Amino acid sequence: MEFDALYSDTARRSQPSIIRALLKLVQDPATISLAGGTPDSNLFDLDRYAKLAENAARVHGRASLQYGETQGMLALREQVAAYLEGRGWKVSPDQVLITTGSQQGIDLLGRVLLDSGDLVAMEEPGYLGAIIAFQNLGAGILPLPIDCIDGLDVARAEAILEASPKAPKFCYLTPTFQNPSGACLTPARRQALAHLAHRRNLLLVEDDPYGEISFAGPPPRPLAADAPEHTIFLGSFSKMSVPGLRIGFAVGPVALIQRLTLAKESADVCSSVLSQAILTEFLKGGHLQATLPGLVNAYRLRRDTLLKALATELPTGSRYFEPSGGFFIWVELPMGLDSQALFQSAINAKVAYVPGKVFYAREGAPTNTLRLSFCAVEEEKLVEGARRLGTVLRSAAVLSV
Amino acid sequence: MEFDALYSDTARRSQPSIIRALLKLVQDPATISLAGGTPDSNLFDLDRYAKLAENAARVHGRASLQYGETQGMLALREQVAAYLEGRGWKVSPDQVLITTGSQQGIDLLGRVLLDSGDLVAMEEPGYLGAIIAFQNLGAGILPLPIDCIDGLDVARAEAILEASPKAPKFCYLTPTFQNPSGACLTPARRQALAHLAHRRNLLLVEDDPYGEISFAGPPPRPLAADAPEHTIFLGSFSKMSVPGLRIGFAVGPVALIQRLTLAKESADVCSSVLSQAILTEFLKGGHLQATLPGLVNAYRLRRDTLLKALATELPTGSRYFEPSGGFFIWVELPMGLDSQALFQSAINAKVAYVPGKVFYAREGAPTNTLRLSFCAVEEEKLVEGARRLGTVLRSAAVLSV
Repeated sequence: MEFDALYSDTARRSQPSIIRALLKLVQDPATISLAGGTPDSNLFDLDRYAKLAENAARVHGRASLQYGETQGMLALREQVAAYLEGRGWKVSPDQVLITTGSQQGIDLLGRVLLDSGDLVAMEEPGYLGAIIAFQNLGAGILPLPIDCIDGLDVARAEAILEASPKAPKFCYLTPTFQNPSGACLTPARRQALAHLAHRRNLLLVEDDPYGEISFAGPPPRPLAADAPEHTIFLGSFSKMSVPGLRIGFAVGPVALIQRLTLAKESADVCSSVLSQAILTEFLKGGHLQATLPGLVNAYRLRRDTLLKALATELPTGSRYFEPSGGFFIWVELPMGLDSQALFQSAINAKVAYVPGKVFYAREGAPTNTLRLSFCAVEEEKLVEGARRLGTVLRSAAVLSV
Repeated sequence: MEFDALYSDTARRSQPSIIRALLKLVQDPATISLAGGTPDSNLFDLDRYAKLAENAARVHGRASLQYGETQGMLALREQVAAYLEGRGWKVSPDQVLITTGSQQGIDLLGRVLLDSGDLVAMEEPGYLGAIIAFQNLGAGILPLPIDCIDGLDVARAEAILEASPKAPKFCYLTPTFQNPSGACLTPARRQALAHLAHRRNLLLVEDDPYGEISFAGPPPRPLAADAPEHTIFLGSFSKMSVPGLRIGFAVGPVALIQRLTLAKESADVCSSVLSQAILTEFLKGGHLQATLPGLVNAYRLRRDTLLKALATELPTGSRYFEPSGGFFIWVELPMGLDSQALFQSAINAKVAYVPGKVFYAREGAPTNTLRLSFCAVEEEKLVEGARRLGTVLRSAAVLSV
């Protein structure tokens, strides 16, 4: 049977993630991948989670095996509220929706807020998974420029919003340790953005997968704490715990949470209840505090190692940005070096990265940027990866002169 | 902030499940609920699953805590293929997509195949969760009549399809132990429907949550085995194992499975990997064979108990249909009795059911039907529930004469 005639507009628009396609090129185990953005599973405390899994089933009993509330297990929503209070933002459990990973939060927001032809404002460069999700729904992207250290340029953002003939349905951003740039929105800019949201009646979507991977003290307070009436916060356990449980959370004004809950009822009824029980016990039992410092320390050492190697390996005229958290380092090569054109040479030299162009939703994006991940590679290999990358880039720089 | 102006067309159309709303009325623990359709958690072997959870984490190692393939863990897809071969349908693991419950299968199909204004053919009465999911996307429903024992009336279905000015994108049905009627499509009708699908180039969506809850020997072969090129089969572990792991599967032609996989990438990246590991070990370790006979036996006894009680309790002129599997008994009351109007009296008498009207997607549905669930109520209470229901219905029947 031929299915082509049956597909919906959404299906016709849908493109696979370019990063996933790139990663399929990186099958050779000899290749050092600075491309992937997944946590290093070698850092997962398997024994702890195996015991937690059994224990959570016994503590929560048969309810952990039954259908659960669509909004999520109350005990977990309470733990999430307590966690956010620790981050400096007080919410009630009825403001929390448990999602199947924070990707589902993005997806549900798109479904509840976007029709084809709508506009979404977004940091540029920005998170590819969000770009794809919104574009699949037929939305256009209004790019807002960022600084690779301080995050969204709020003054320019306001001018762009002002000049836009169409108002965006919301503004999506990752203010804390952004993917791909590593930028962290400054406190002053958070304040300014909160004021902008009030003034323009603009809904903010604060995606926060990396908040806890903070290298210089506790993470900043969520942007949502500055603009609670105008912000939906998307949290994730994928980086501060493990991704395989597929649990995230959306937190915000009750009216919007109820709409998202209704959309989730159609999407998957509820998220894995056993996963929810495990994360309830994880938070309740102090396992976050027990495991997070080790994780953060490992990622910090990897960041330091890669930064140090880049300092000597990158061609003259390159810039890179020291992230204060998260998984990524953003690199600007000298003009004339095209990171996408050089990708095959890098693969031949057995090192991989992500060309920065994929994080732009528009044509005509700069071609001289790239994203390097330090999260999933051990230190020795980071040094060797930077060396291989440097060799490829420096010889291309010589040729391009 | 006011969100009303921001909502998408889909969000505006979205209605909560009427059954969930009804169930909220049934909070009084003294009420015997013949309304809910969830398995009885008292039948779950908690100790077995607690041990399986720990063991699955250890067997699959850190991969069980990491992101997984969007299509699902290969080991689980192989087990699902082996399971389906046991049901009489041979498929390869690349035809299998693991979903976050079979509800996600319905949702992804809707997203990949339906635009607003499209048409879906569906059994009438039919599964409410599917009606809601398709209507939320703006699709219209073309109802196809069923017999409450033998399932879809294929000859009438063909005439209706022939007469429809618009061709439906697909035909959704639950051929085996249908919700709400309990009907099971006969082998001859399966053959006829397979031929119809070929002749009309019609895609069939075979939803099969209840297949394994079969009271008279092994369940029938999937309809998909008769029309493999034209059928997407939606399976679920919720009834044959437990719902709380939130794992289902969609199986069909590779081209369509790939489209659904792409849609799932945006929806939630992948389903709980630990849940997938647990169900892999569940199938691999023979736990299905170890637990299913006990489950089926318990449900069969409950069906028998409720049928026996209904025989004496229902008012004269009622009909009810003996299901050969699944969770439900469908009742037709004497004309003039309105099951929706009587709902409050039933609640007052401390018994609950679902008015049959909610399983019809159109206006003007018969008002004299109701769905009774025997799945989650112990036998003594089933007898008492039937007694209470009978009292309400018989006195209404007297008044309606």
